[in-house]
Amino acid sequence: MRTTAPTSTLYLSAPEMAELVRRKGVHTCIAGIADYLRDDFLRWPQFDKSARVASHSPDGVIELMPIADATTYSFKYVNGHPRNTLRGLSTVMAFGVLADVATGTPQLLSELTLTTALRTAAMSALAARALARPDSRVMALIGNGAQSEFQALAFQHLLGITALRLFDTDPAATAKLVANLGGTGLQVTVCASAAEAARGADIVTTITADKTNATIVTPAMVAPGMHINAVGGDCPGKTELHADVLRQGAVFVEYAPQTRLEGDIQQLPADFAVTELWEVLAGRQPGRSHAAQVTVFDSVGFALEDFSALRFMRDAALELGVGERIALVPALTDPKNLFAVLRQPAAAPRMPAPALGAVA
Amino acid sequence: MRTTAPTSTLYLSAPEMAELVRRKGVHTCIAGIADYLRDDFLRWPQFDKSARVASHSPDGVIELMPIADATTYSFKYVNGHPRNTLRGLSTVMAFGVLADVATGTPQLLSELTLTTALRTAAMSALAARALARPDSRVMALIGNGAQSEFQALAFQHLLGITALRLFDTDPAATAKLVANLGGTGLQVTVCASAAEAARGADIVTTITADKTNATIVTPAMVAPGMHINAVGGDCPGKTELHADVLRQGAVFVEYAPQTRLEGDIQQLPADFAVTELWEVLAGRQPGRSHAAQVTVFDSVGFALEDFSALRFMRDAALELGVGERIALVPALTDPKNLFAVLRQPAAAPRMPAPALGAVA
Repeated sequence: MRTTAPTSTLYLSAPEMAELVRRKGVHTCIAGIADYLRDDFLRWPQFDKSARVASHSPDGVIELMPIADATTYSFKYVNGHPRNTLRGLSTVMAFGVLADVATGTPQLLSELTLTTALRTAAMSALAARALARPDSRVMALIGNGAQSEFQALAFQHLLGITALRLFDTDPAATAKLVANLGGTGLQVTVCASAAEAARGADIVTTITADKTNATIVTPAMVAPGMHINAVGGDCPGKTELHADVLRQGAVFVEYAPQTRLEGDIQQLPADFAVTELWEVLAGRQPGRSHAAQVTVFDSVGFALEDFSALRFMRDAALELGVGERIALVPALTDPKNLFAVLRQPAAAPRMPAPALGAVA
Repeated sequence: MRTTAPTSTLYLSAPEMAELVRRKGVHTCIAGIADYLRDDFLRWPQFDKSARVASHSPDGVIELMPIADATTYSFKYVNGHPRNTLRGLSTVMAFGVLADVATGTPQLLSELTLTTALRTAAMSALAARALARPDSRVMALIGNGAQSEFQALAFQHLLGITALRLFDTDPAATAKLVANLGGTGLQVTVCASAAEAARGADIVTTITADKTNATIVTPAMVAPGMHINAVGGDCPGKTELHADVLRQGAVFVEYAPQTRLEGDIQQLPADFAVTELWEVLAGRQPGRSHAAQVTVFDSVGFALEDFSALRFMRDAALELGVGERIALVPALTDPKNLFAVLRQPAAAPRMPAPALGAVA
């Protein structure tokens, strides 16, 4: 499968990505992705943006998330199937591509299951740095599934969170999270309900998987000055916040046209005021206005985040020499002669390599 | 890279696909894809359909083409960059995926550059079987680029075409086509213009690459009873037929909402009458009404065609044992414990296989 043709595509499998993240370090990857995210969000108007294309079924959703600037195109394939864990499969699986806008050549094919967890955590932390109180130290983490460790580490290292209050309807998920956080230095409290977890928290992160209009966070749970990082409500019919929670504070979103369809604000009228996060990062709009304000990041995951994460992972893979080259598209001697591939043998017979210069 | 996990994805590279097509035979593949296409078009209402998502740039276009039925989801990535051949690259490069609707697991990742040429030819022939005069023997082939051999072979084997009249603005492309058709038994005439090529033809196939509103076929070139297979006009600003050619006959399309944006009928009002091909194949609408009628298949390429082609290629690959299994998504012992992949070594150390039963 190895090839050195100019049309060859760098491929990062799921095991290779895990190796890459282990070698660079999880915190370094999250912080690096957050840097790439900030750089890309600051040039927001340069991107050709569209809401993702979703295919819904009774069991879940499969989405394609394309985006491009003048030189690079990317897309992500991602599913969301809450009942997958009952079959031993991940709720979310993903992969994606970086391609050259000038020629359409696919340059990188990468796993994005692990990377989505990293970039979602990086995005949450980037938003919280702009929106949460700077003295935030305690975070409630409601939903202790596959992405929860990444949120915990992102907030520890990028925000200075020192204590977590955990809740999940599945105690085994919480036990798994507690075990995985061993040795991180985070102080962990297991709570009996979402309301108990939110008590005393500076930041409340919700990252639940059920595809329902759930009410994980009610108005009674919200204290003045709280930042709510609502990650799990991310497709039509899947919400986590009571509508009044959204009305209690200032709501920030990634890309309003998509969030109005998919985010917690799908419960509210189309003219409900929200601020796009890039405007806060660029200093065009205020973030938090005072210490007692409630801020909500109604996160759904936008294609630009995968664009940034794919760029980071490509650069890291090239730096570390991880991944391999694959022939996803054919290498043609004459590009108008596609038919010629049917005349070539499948693999060249093994023979001594010719001297350099002997091959055109 | 090999894996046997339930999440593993069958991967067909460009060289492996060429090997598959060589082993099965080009005609067999085109005929097989045409059969899969007909089966899928006959159950048209079962598909969740949408127009493709296109990202346009000065040099070309990159598109995603998703579609799904109740059990299988597919998408294709495809570019169209007419000036690529000047750089030694293909105008069109493509790959695609089949996934399980119930879980979102990607089941097949396949090259689709060669396969797109095969499926486009199969689609053209399937349409022509329903629309061209049954006694058609002579076809003009205008545009002699990468896809032209496949059109020639599809019409020879599925329609009974015996003679081709060729034209391309690049004489080298025509010479390449003539050389590739040697030994097929097709009688070939090289023409000095599109008009000369169309003279005496029963079917006129246009498959040109320029992203312009071109006028490859004018009303004066159209004879009574002709079938026009217009393949190259397939995105906004890219047409091949003079508008009056469309008004001269009955126009058939794949999926009207997409063709009105991308096909030759983009030149005409939104209420211009067209018939979707699936209705003809299903016997719900007439095709050709009389021998002197002019019929036009305004083909743009629809996601269902890639769905059918991917299904055919998957079945052929499994039959022949072509392709390999890759780990595009992670195989997790506990799907809620994605974080655990960061604790595992990249590859298990080589050691004697444990006795069966010794592993949970």
